[in-house]
Amino acid sequence: MLARMSDDELRSGEVVVALPPHPDVHLYFVGTIRTPWKTRQECPKRGSPDGPVCTLVIDERWRDALAGLAAHKRVQVLYWMSRARRDLVLQTPYSTIKTLGTFALRSPVRPNPIASSLCELVAVDGTNVQVRGLDCLDGTPLLDLKPERGAHER
Amino acid sequence: MLARMSDDELRSGEVVVALPPHPDVHLYFVGTIRTPWKTRQECPKRGSPDGPVCTLVIDERWRDALAGLAAHKRVQVLYWMSRARRDLVLQTPYSTIKTLGTFALRSPVRPNPIASSLCELVAVDGTNVQVRGLDCLDGTPLLDLKPERGAHER
Repeated sequence: MLARMSDDELRSGEVVVALPPHPDVHLYFVGTIRTPWKTRQECPKRGSPDGPVCTLVIDERWRDALAGLAAHKRVQVLYWMSRARRDLVLQTPYSTIKTLGTFALRSPVRPNPIASSLCELVAVDGTNVQVRGLDCLDGTPLLDLKPERGAHER
Repeated sequence: MLARMSDDELRSGEVVVALPPHPDVHLYFVGTIRTPWKTRQECPKRGSPDGPVCTLVIDERWRDALAGLAAHKRVQVLYWMSRARRDLVLQTPYSTIKTLGTFALRSPVRPNPIASSLCELVAVDGTNVQVRGLDCLDGTPLLDLKPERGAHER
């Protein structure tokens, strides 16, 4: 059994590649996610629609971008898994001890650590958007939110 | 009825904000998406599991990251909508002529133009991943692919 290691140590079977010399594009954080979980160990393995209400605190700059959001029941939330390393191609998750390719896992460790969660929309109050179904750390940077894909939407 | 405009023109009701002075994080393209569609007008409004096979051509650097992917039936594909402007908070889509906030739409025009599609996995052949269900332009930059969220995955 593998011991729990620090974020930078490699586990058996894990393989690193050199990252490209230059990034291609950049992102702006559009807000911050407030959740009850202060450490990775506290985070649930998977968000649940019965889970606690979490709040997407949208930056003032993007306030008007929320117009009309409250009409939707479910939203897709994209956020940045800021603590993850980005250079592993093969990984051995602690939970399975089975080595797999990064693109065959939903691990936070990936070249572009973007997480996607489908959430129940609870309320929109000014620049605070309350949702259920997240499983991320308190303070996680928000990248985007959009209505769940529906029959009439692209 | 609004005329179809160029990408940089504003439609009635649309509002622009100043983007933040500095980006927060950066992305690496991990491959290129090959599709049958060379212009936006040709693209379907929404990908279908009955649609044509498209190919995710993964950069050689990330080849090993595909190990184990073929065991999955459905994958989530994240890609970069590189032609979209990023500074609109209110938008008036051509298809509805109804002004809504950017976060209440799945429009490509958003601060971080990241698209997410759930696709049927057809085959993994070396660094080519064949899928059905995309609706993007040929040559679209790929950001990530991961198995559809399942009961045992985070």
